[in-house]
Amino acid sequence: MAARVAGKHVFDACGACTINLMKRIAVTMGDPAGIGPEICLHLLADGAIHRECTPVIFGDAAILRRAGAGARVRLTAPVLSRSAWSAHWKDINAAAVLDFATPETDGIQPGIVSAATGAAGFAYVNAAIDAALAGEVDAVVTAPLHKEALRAAGVPFPGHTEIFAARTGAPRSCMMQYSEVITCTFVTTHIGYAEVPRVLTRERIEEVIDLTADGLRRIRGRTPRLGVCGLNPHAGEHGLFGDGEEERIILPAIEAARRRGHEIEGPLPPDTAFLPHLRRALDGIVCMYHDQGHIPVKALAFDKAVNTTLGLPIIRTSVDHGTALNIAWQGRANPGSLFHAVRLAVRLATAG
Amino acid sequence: MAARVAGKHVFDACGACTINLMKRIAVTMGDPAGIGPEICLHLLADGAIHRECTPVIFGDAAILRRAGAGARVRLTAPVLSRSAWSAHWKDINAAAVLDFATPETDGIQPGIVSAATGAAGFAYVNAAIDAALAGEVDAVVTAPLHKEALRAAGVPFPGHTEIFAARTGAPRSCMMQYSEVITCTFVTTHIGYAEVPRVLTRERIEEVIDLTADGLRRIRGRTPRLGVCGLNPHAGEHGLFGDGEEERIILPAIEAARRRGHEIEGPLPPDTAFLPHLRRALDGIVCMYHDQGHIPVKALAFDKAVNTTLGLPIIRTSVDHGTALNIAWQGRANPGSLFHAVRLAVRLATAG
Repeated sequence: MAARVAGKHVFDACGACTINLMKRIAVTMGDPAGIGPEICLHLLADGAIHRECTPVIFGDAAILRRAGAGARVRLTAPVLSRSAWSAHWKDINAAAVLDFATPETDGIQPGIVSAATGAAGFAYVNAAIDAALAGEVDAVVTAPLHKEALRAAGVPFPGHTEIFAARTGAPRSCMMQYSEVITCTFVTTHIGYAEVPRVLTRERIEEVIDLTADGLRRIRGRTPRLGVCGLNPHAGEHGLFGDGEEERIILPAIEAARRRGHEIEGPLPPDTAFLPHLRRALDGIVCMYHDQGHIPVKALAFDKAVNTTLGLPIIRTSVDHGTALNIAWQGRANPGSLFHAVRLAVRLATAG
Repeated sequence: MAARVAGKHVFDACGACTINLMKRIAVTMGDPAGIGPEICLHLLADGAIHRECTPVIFGDAAILRRAGAGARVRLTAPVLSRSAWSAHWKDINAAAVLDFATPETDGIQPGIVSAATGAAGFAYVNAAIDAALAGEVDAVVTAPLHKEALRAAGVPFPGHTEIFAARTGAPRSCMMQYSEVITCTFVTTHIGYAEVPRVLTRERIEEVIDLTADGLRRIRGRTPRLGVCGLNPHAGEHGLFGDGEEERIILPAIEAARRRGHEIEGPLPPDTAFLPHLRRALDGIVCMYHDQGHIPVKALAFDKAVNTTLGLPIIRTSVDHGTALNIAWQGRANPGSLFHAVRLAVRLATAG
């Protein structure tokens, strides 16, 4: 009997749903002491998103219930044990919670990170990566971790980007911040300001240009137009400032990438790279260091930008904000960025 | 006989204007090959600005006429020779051009900078500084110079800020970018990226905090609330990134400044320092390096921001854009930033 496709479900002629074609998305709860739990509850409570995908929260039901009491959002989705997930993940086709049942969550308080919260948040991410590598989910979306909690827990990574790169064995990857108004990728991220010039290489810049072009081609469906920032004020203004990083490193990387067919403008003076006419003309801008891109993304697209890691064997997106400990479990957190992150993950999973 | 004040003029009882109280503002024409000439023509042609101040363009009438022909803005203001200015500057109470009659301006073409254009632009600025130091004008507003033209002309300064500091003998000064939506000051400006950590000192940061507070107090009429950015991503996240610049240098500077009565938040993570709620709560943000502040100012307030130098014995403001050589003399330049710069200069001259 011919099937009709309505939304992402397949219906038979009687209108009964027979096959779920929707993408199953692991959403990690983030550090339990932050705003992660309550934004996950908002996701579980939203009818519209459930017509676009099947989100599964990798977290702790006990924390979700306590955070929900403070934030006035009830947990109504089904709660699965890890053994139930292992046995039945193929059949999960509605929003759910995968409960890690972390011991002694009673001691966890909103706004107070610790080795315990860092370890819990890390465990959700590890399990989500395993699930994605095993094909149990189509993508991973991450709520925010807290770097000091990770460190207290002895986790040898400063953040998600590095965890995903190491756990998936990706030989090369980079961070992308994506939004409708501004999209940036990063040659370097969580290192000190002074370290940046020491680690910039032509090879790494070429790598990030390639990853950016690949990622944006999947999103745009065509060859993207890229900008590449300089490092120094005014991109060095032809040698007036800096140690010639533009001429020695950045421009040769751009020229090599152009020879491989990429459409690139640059090295752009960093302060004018994000003007409206360039943002309209370019699909993405390759940035040399963390704040070069994070400052304009946050200024122009706060709560709308999505963080994604390019170059991994799995799809991973993330919210564009931190744990916001000062407002955790109070009902004040804006879940907008998480919704954007889930929708971009679905888009990448569908394109991929 | 009692005088009535209407606008900035004083009228006697018969309605005749007797004393001009309007501020006389030297506006330098900038590099002749850039968009400076045509934005100055727009200023001369604007009736509203002439009710607020008396702008005098320090430039070349021959260039203004040629740029005006291309940009379709006619020069109609009176043109004074330098000797006429010397003799009669006190009587100048309507918009005018102070003509430097630079030899061989015929060779100057739009969009092509040279030693000749650099030298001409530098001469206007020098004369405007002299006029301000002599009390002939109440403030100097500068159109953009071109750094490579200055260098070709053998000028030993990379830009206006440094010229003003040296020529006025100011022991300390700093750049401020001012707009209604975002205001930043700068601990360092036109130096290479890699140099910044080497020149950051607690003393310089305290100096810039003091200059920022003084400048904003004049504009706001009250004690301003300041933010101070960190240097590293996430302001170092308590030692996770960087060489401890926040703890070693920036925080001690903030604490010392607080003890002197300044209201300060910081060190702020640079990427969240410019979010809307902080921009509303803070009157100005002290930035450690050029692009940390120029990126958000240009992204959020392009064509609206004004550049001013704090700490000088004279008042100086400037447009927030460059020479835009690619559109010079074509009638495409937006004079908005110049109007904002003139109005801020008038405000500072009136407050001071």
